[in-house]
Amino acid sequence: MRYAIIGTGAIGGYYGCKLAKSGKDVHFLLHRDYDYVLKHGIQVDSCDESFHLDKLNVYNDISSMPKCDVVLVCLKSTNNCLLEQFIPSIVNDDTLVVLVQNGIGLEYDVQQKFPQLPLAAGLAFICCAKTQPGRVNHQCYGSINIGNYSCKNQLQINQVIYDLRNAGIDANEVEYNEARWKKAVWNMPFNGLTVALNTQTNLLLQNTFTHKLVKDIMLEVITAARLLGVNNIDETFADKMIEMTIKMTPYSPSMKLDYDFKRPMEIYYLYTRPIVEAAKAGFQMKKLEMLEAELRYLSQNNAI
Amino acid sequence: MRYAIIGTGAIGGYYGCKLAKSGKDVHFLLHRDYDYVLKHGIQVDSCDESFHLDKLNVYNDISSMPKCDVVLVCLKSTNNCLLEQFIPSIVNDDTLVVLVQNGIGLEYDVQQKFPQLPLAAGLAFICCAKTQPGRVNHQCYGSINIGNYSCKNQLQINQVIYDLRNAGIDANEVEYNEARWKKAVWNMPFNGLTVALNTQTNLLLQNTFTHKLVKDIMLEVITAARLLGVNNIDETFADKMIEMTIKMTPYSPSMKLDYDFKRPMEIYYLYTRPIVEAAKAGFQMKKLEMLEAELRYLSQNNAI
Repeated sequence: MRYAIIGTGAIGGYYGCKLAKSGKDVHFLLHRDYDYVLKHGIQVDSCDESFHLDKLNVYNDISSMPKCDVVLVCLKSTNNCLLEQFIPSIVNDDTLVVLVQNGIGLEYDVQQKFPQLPLAAGLAFICCAKTQPGRVNHQCYGSINIGNYSCKNQLQINQVIYDLRNAGIDANEVEYNEARWKKAVWNMPFNGLTVALNTQTNLLLQNTFTHKLVKDIMLEVITAARLLGVNNIDETFADKMIEMTIKMTPYSPSMKLDYDFKRPMEIYYLYTRPIVEAAKAGFQMKKLEMLEAELRYLSQNNAI
Repeated sequence: MRYAIIGTGAIGGYYGCKLAKSGKDVHFLLHRDYDYVLKHGIQVDSCDESFHLDKLNVYNDISSMPKCDVVLVCLKSTNNCLLEQFIPSIVNDDTLVVLVQNGIGLEYDVQQKFPQLPLAAGLAFICCAKTQPGRVNHQCYGSINIGNYSCKNQLQINQVIYDLRNAGIDANEVEYNEARWKKAVWNMPFNGLTVALNTQTNLLLQNTFTHKLVKDIMLEVITAARLLGVNNIDETFADKMIEMTIKMTPYSPSMKLDYDFKRPMEIYYLYTRPIVEAAKAGFQMKKLEMLEAELRYLSQNNAI
């Protein structure tokens, strides 16, 4: 099994290096950090076990990469337009492409472009950040759930989970739609509010008013999810997510880091698209509409 | 007719000085700026006609003020608890008290404390700021509408309007409930959003997303107002307010100045109370609930 990691940031770097360390044949696509990683490899500073990998298979040009059996797309979704160019270059007829990205509607959009492509979602539950080129800081958690979107060969899904587990990663198969929406229950309040209020997860939950706001927003997501066919979710899931977050180290979600470093924010797949999908099902996510507008405003005024 | 100005900031300073300049017997209560204004008077830098007044009747102690016929309360509503002490000290049996403040529910709360007191609302349409002690910067507009809340003697209301007009102020009588809610249509989006997004009125309206958000929030206020008995208001009023604001000089509403200078924000009467009143009438102002929570969070983290 040959793996491609498309986008070697925090997520791609972490999972890719874990797979490579376990002996898998992993090929990394990089952009800005290519020269550095070619020379110095990648250092993973991990709450579990830190390690360093040299002599990785790294590329800065998709056309020089080999065909792979599994592609883990770890790009920011703001760059998904690049997939039209990347995917044909590295897939065989039955390559499984796993979108390890946050948001709603990602697989649908990629499938429109590649109707035959076996697709899955990768839901990463991990606190990590790329702190500098070739350096991944893994703070806590680390599991990944795989939700099958359109892969007809179940053995491929099983194999990926098997490989990830062999690499020391807690990997499990989950129901696609439920998994994407459950992840959104955490992502939608915390990514946007930490940007809008220039804060971190713990401070939002320590304040009575924003604690309630986080819960209200989670309930908007849960209401939408139920209307869109996710049955196994209710208010208790919001409470569970809040309890978990209270126990976490104070955390800046990826959107907060993107904003602080003046990178594009993933507003479309994290906010706009789920709001649109909920509206199609007859539900107006009013607080999230407001958060989306605030993020759009801040994004426009955050340009370099 | 003897006037008391309770709270000599931008609003109290402007209207009080205009009345004093026109020859009225005006008595100003000050706190922090007392020593300065006692020595130097007040300078009004105005888009209409700048002027300076010396030898004002100024006080820093309510008990030394004379009884007055009309009291203009120009305090920030966060200090309204002080009215319990101030009002008995300066009113006769039929003194008219005009609350020149923003928000919903102000007169109701004061009336609870003073059931016999003739009360009116003063709705100031003015862009002005106290830029330093004894200095009021009047940028534009300047009219004031008077809404009778519980004054049985119409002649008193007429007299105040007459005096204000004689002082060169565009003053008119309006229906109390309609006037308070119509003012809220402008106040509720612009005060909070300029704080939450660290911006000014013009930038909010130049951005497509926050332009729509401003309108959505105005429609929440209009929906609440209609449920609470204001008939003469509909969506066109929101459009009118937005058009007016686009023509205005870029403006930082009072709450933005309060936040920037680390003063308390008038969250209760501008947000919490109207949200509660709307909820009693069966309507949840969802975007405004979110804005309120954001402001509460920012307020708590803005303490000196």
